[in-house]
Amino acid sequence: MQGLFFTFEGVDFCGKSTQIKRLVQRLEHQDIPVLLVREPGGTDISEAIREILLDTKNTSMHARTELLLYTAARAQIVAEKIVPALAASMVVICDRFIDSTTAYQGYGRELGLAFVQKINEFATQSLKPDATIWIDIPLDVAEARRKQFSLKKDRLEGEARSFRERVVAGYQMLADAEPDRIHIIDGNGPIEDVEERVWQVVSPLLTRWQDQ
Amino acid sequence: MQGLFFTFEGVDFCGKSTQIKRLVQRLEHQDIPVLLVREPGGTDISEAIREILLDTKNTSMHARTELLLYTAARAQIVAEKIVPALAASMVVICDRFIDSTTAYQGYGRELGLAFVQKINEFATQSLKPDATIWIDIPLDVAEARRKQFSLKKDRLEGEARSFRERVVAGYQMLADAEPDRIHIIDGNGPIEDVEERVWQVVSPLLTRWQDQ
Repeated sequence: MQGLFFTFEGVDFCGKSTQIKRLVQRLEHQDIPVLLVREPGGTDISEAIREILLDTKNTSMHARTELLLYTAARAQIVAEKIVPALAASMVVICDRFIDSTTAYQGYGRELGLAFVQKINEFATQSLKPDATIWIDIPLDVAEARRKQFSLKKDRLEGEARSFRERVVAGYQMLADAEPDRIHIIDGNGPIEDVEERVWQVVSPLLTRWQDQ
Repeated sequence: MQGLFFTFEGVDFCGKSTQIKRLVQRLEHQDIPVLLVREPGGTDISEAIREILLDTKNTSMHARTELLLYTAARAQIVAEKIVPALAASMVVICDRFIDSTTAYQGYGRELGLAFVQKINEFATQSLKPDATIWIDIPLDVAEARRKQFSLKKDRLEGEARSFRERVVAGYQMLADAEPDRIHIIDGNGPIEDVEERVWQVVSPLLTRWQDQ
């Protein structure tokens, strides 16, 4: 039996990591074998690439370099971790995947959607998630959360508002294009409420998968 | 006046670096402003990528990851160094460029020539060298030189003979396809003889460029 592959998407501070943690706990509670990975990262090579990408010193990084580094990290984690875990019937949960690249580099950096799609397909060998959870919150809410937690910015968190708006528009276009795969989850309100909304998406897929 | 762009290609131990050094000396002797760079590398970001590529610990690196990392390093050096230097009327000499990726990743790793070409074009924005010097030596000679100097192998130098044979076949196909750009230089014999052969290619281009 092939595993099940979920990805989480959304802007920083949308609540992705919190929701992923809760979903993993639920699954492990049911003794379902889970592999949780984050992008970029998740393998030694991909983590080394992540360091280059997030290093605040690298302000001169060109958008094309950035795209190629994200997809390099992805090619490695797909081959080394995700494909083997799916072959071993695990549930794989990935914090960011192909849609981040389309939204951030394709729409945000305006690098050309056709090429971004082609390079995503090359890096993943056309592997797609069974379901993608896009946690959607207004940019003002994300910005307020950022200020509240006042963390040190990484290279990408210093981006302009217009960039973030293009990213959100990109997610919306992707969700419109693939409504069966990409589920828009309202990220407003108490964590428990969002968790329940996520579960409403995951649960039927999980049941169908377990009944195979 | 736009600068002049030369690249050097060939298998390891073909004598590229020695010939490049001599060419740079000749040009500097004529007070021609030269930028010498090597691939992968040549910028802080590209050198960080180079470290990942050559690290002998990274034996699990997938061929697709490797291709994307090489082209990431290239995208950065093209945007940050090569294009500005050509705009400033310099002679740019690059130790390895697009043809290495086609020969090593396209032919050597058999990753698909059409995609390798497309990603090269993306990384370079279709910038091509004015002339490429392919220093061609038999693989046995390269192997003998390697043993003689008995250097520590990097990740790529541990590759099988069949891989190296595909790389050489790749260079040959490229040279056949673009005979006006790619010049095959016999790398056998004394360094001075090879240097003279290289100069026979470079000199007329240089004269035409200076007469502009």
